[in-house]
Amino acid sequence: MVNDKSILQGVEMTDYYKPAIESHRKTKGKFAVTSLMALETQEDLSIAYTPGVAGPCHEIADAPGESYALTMKGRSVAVLSDGTAVLGLGNIGPAAALPVIEGKAVLFKAFADIDAVPICVDIDSDEALIAVGRAIAPTFGGINLEDIAAPRCFVVENALQDIGIPVFHDDQHGTAIVLLAALKNASRVVGKSLTDMTIVISGAGAAGTAIAKILRCINFDTDVCMSVREVLVCDSKGLVSPDRDNLSSAKKEILGYSNRTGRSGTLQDALAGADAFIGVSRGGLLCADDIRRMADDPIILAMANPEPEIMPDEAKRGGAAVVGTGRSDFPNQVNNVLAFPGIFRGALDAHAVSITQKMKMAAVNALAESVSQPTADRILPDPLDKTVAPKVAQAVQRAYDGG
Amino acid sequence: MVNDKSILQGVEMTDYYKPAIESHRKTKGKFAVTSLMALETQEDLSIAYTPGVAGPCHEIADAPGESYALTMKGRSVAVLSDGTAVLGLGNIGPAAALPVIEGKAVLFKAFADIDAVPICVDIDSDEALIAVGRAIAPTFGGINLEDIAAPRCFVVENALQDIGIPVFHDDQHGTAIVLLAALKNASRVVGKSLTDMTIVISGAGAAGTAIAKILRCINFDTDVCMSVREVLVCDSKGLVSPDRDNLSSAKKEILGYSNRTGRSGTLQDALAGADAFIGVSRGGLLCADDIRRMADDPIILAMANPEPEIMPDEAKRGGAAVVGTGRSDFPNQVNNVLAFPGIFRGALDAHAVSITQKMKMAAVNALAESVSQPTADRILPDPLDKTVAPKVAQAVQRAYDGG
Repeated sequence: MVNDKSILQGVEMTDYYKPAIESHRKTKGKFAVTSLMALETQEDLSIAYTPGVAGPCHEIADAPGESYALTMKGRSVAVLSDGTAVLGLGNIGPAAALPVIEGKAVLFKAFADIDAVPICVDIDSDEALIAVGRAIAPTFGGINLEDIAAPRCFVVENALQDIGIPVFHDDQHGTAIVLLAALKNASRVVGKSLTDMTIVISGAGAAGTAIAKILRCINFDTDVCMSVREVLVCDSKGLVSPDRDNLSSAKKEILGYSNRTGRSGTLQDALAGADAFIGVSRGGLLCADDIRRMADDPIILAMANPEPEIMPDEAKRGGAAVVGTGRSDFPNQVNNVLAFPGIFRGALDAHAVSITQKMKMAAVNALAESVSQPTADRILPDPLDKTVAPKVAQAVQRAYDGG
Repeated sequence: MVNDKSILQGVEMTDYYKPAIESHRKTKGKFAVTSLMALETQEDLSIAYTPGVAGPCHEIADAPGESYALTMKGRSVAVLSDGTAVLGLGNIGPAAALPVIEGKAVLFKAFADIDAVPICVDIDSDEALIAVGRAIAPTFGGINLEDIAAPRCFVVENALQDIGIPVFHDDQHGTAIVLLAALKNASRVVGKSLTDMTIVISGAGAAGTAIAKILRCINFDTDVCMSVREVLVCDSKGLVSPDRDNLSSAKKEILGYSNRTGRSGTLQDALAGADAFIGVSRGGLLCADDIRRMADDPIILAMANPEPEIMPDEAKRGGAAVVGTGRSDFPNQVNNVLAFPGIFRGALDAHAVSITQKMKMAAVNALAESVSQPTADRILPDPLDKTVAPKVAQAVQRAYDGG
């Protein structure tokens, strides 16, 4: 989920910590297997296993595309993690990451009927993780990379784009897609065009980077990208700007698609005159006065969890027209579960080899359009609304044009 | 299953080929996922996923052994294959192997309530397969290696013995365990002691090698191995003997635990005076006259499929006292499904780091003892008898002493 990376501090954890441990102990986690064919009689075994199974083997050996029709590949993805960036715990390793990755897998099932397999791996280099992703490709119709620290998440995702199935780092793109859908509907509510907006992002990790990137190209009907007017990305040291020393290569890359005007300064400086604020950083960064520096009717999407960058009440006191958070106890919950199940379902149904920009934008639009009449308190559907994923899936499948 | 490697020729395939393809197409294979926790309400998500899931993550980060109690690890194995030795099809690759590996996974579920995950991998070296096995260890309580060609199956299994979970090549050890149980009960039927027997094995691949090996050590109550008197292994060129040129290193290794008396000659030569014949090779090798060369009351376990090395009627004409095959339409079906589900269940319940010789022998004994009064037509239980795996599991768990 967006910003669940910092969820371990605060009230919500203490409330759910113990019941979650008890619940997990009772069932030994969540992920379980079931057979789609009967296995009771000799006849059953002869169809599901030997000797009959040689039939489907033959078919696939003759025509590899038949994998999608005759095996789990057509409805399965791997949820692959090295456990280096798990919730607020950080680099806790693959064993401790497994409860989260199992959870993600069963969400795929619950929201999009995808048979997703958790694979937490013990690896010690980017290359080793790339090798695992490449190796498992025959079994799955897609790979959801999860909870992998930057810059490894970028390196690994890039390296795996040629393996014949979509490889998609949800912490980047799922987040960016839900955010852009939220922003799109929020812009309707405030009566502004995204292309006229200056948008400030707080957070320059995987999510912040992906959001900045997607804002460069917010349409997909033409070959020419339409972009928001300006994107300003801030990290803990302020604006990512050309005059800063010692920018990491990842942050130098961020400069390639943000801060066209070469501004520098603090987060507060960046907010002056801005139309929207997107927080994927940490709680309690802003106050009402900061919002007052922004343009009229500012949009605030503050996703740090459990404490947002600014609490909704405080943001409204500062004049915010629309406020969203990552939390379920306020309106406008921004949650990745609105995107990843439908995106992978669409990709599987298309037998896609990658998730293209066009597919991502189709997901954004389907998600935004699933709210028929956006209001300040309803820019996104309820994350538990299971009618959303099928709409996203259909749009994503249609948008696929062979990768 | 024993000798399903050669199942693709002959009558059974043509009967089941089409219905199996139709059946697989209808459901897109067999393996499916289900969630052990509800995922309907916000409260559900807070327990199964964020924020509550951080609780189990914490517990495991603090005490890695908690993985077995709090995640799928305590009830899951990976079924790992590179698709190099699939049924009679041979090296058809990982995509075409997937129907078989999915079948194996759901058999684990049906017979031992193990949540097994099919992982067919595209790799090009022993080292690459070893790397995958090593990487996925945090997620699973064991790895069942499957349908991997010799000598890779030996190299990979050996290399993975230190990864903290059992790694077990079923085509070797599962086969050997079921065979030895069958042999044990057959020896009771004919009133001979295994330690007095000369046993001829036809087939010097993974299964034949593992059977020869297990016959070196058929007890586990003392530290000194008791062995059958003599094991003679034959390949397509006859007896594996010290005077043969150009023996592969795998076959040289076979010499280390067979043919103590340095015999040479044909399969027929080897059979002269032998007490038992074990076939893991190909159909139609023997006739009644060959059986007549053996000692009194010979035991014939002819597992080539669908056509055994010798048909039961023909073997009996030659004087065979007990005959078993890999087929379901004759008495005494020798089938790996009698072993692997219970063995892994016992290993999971013991949190075993390896499957020791003692555990293997416990499985042999539990399996043999599950037939209370062996007769010539009943040396093994019915492969569909789901009461067998729990007995094997319990014996295997008890026999584990920390690896």
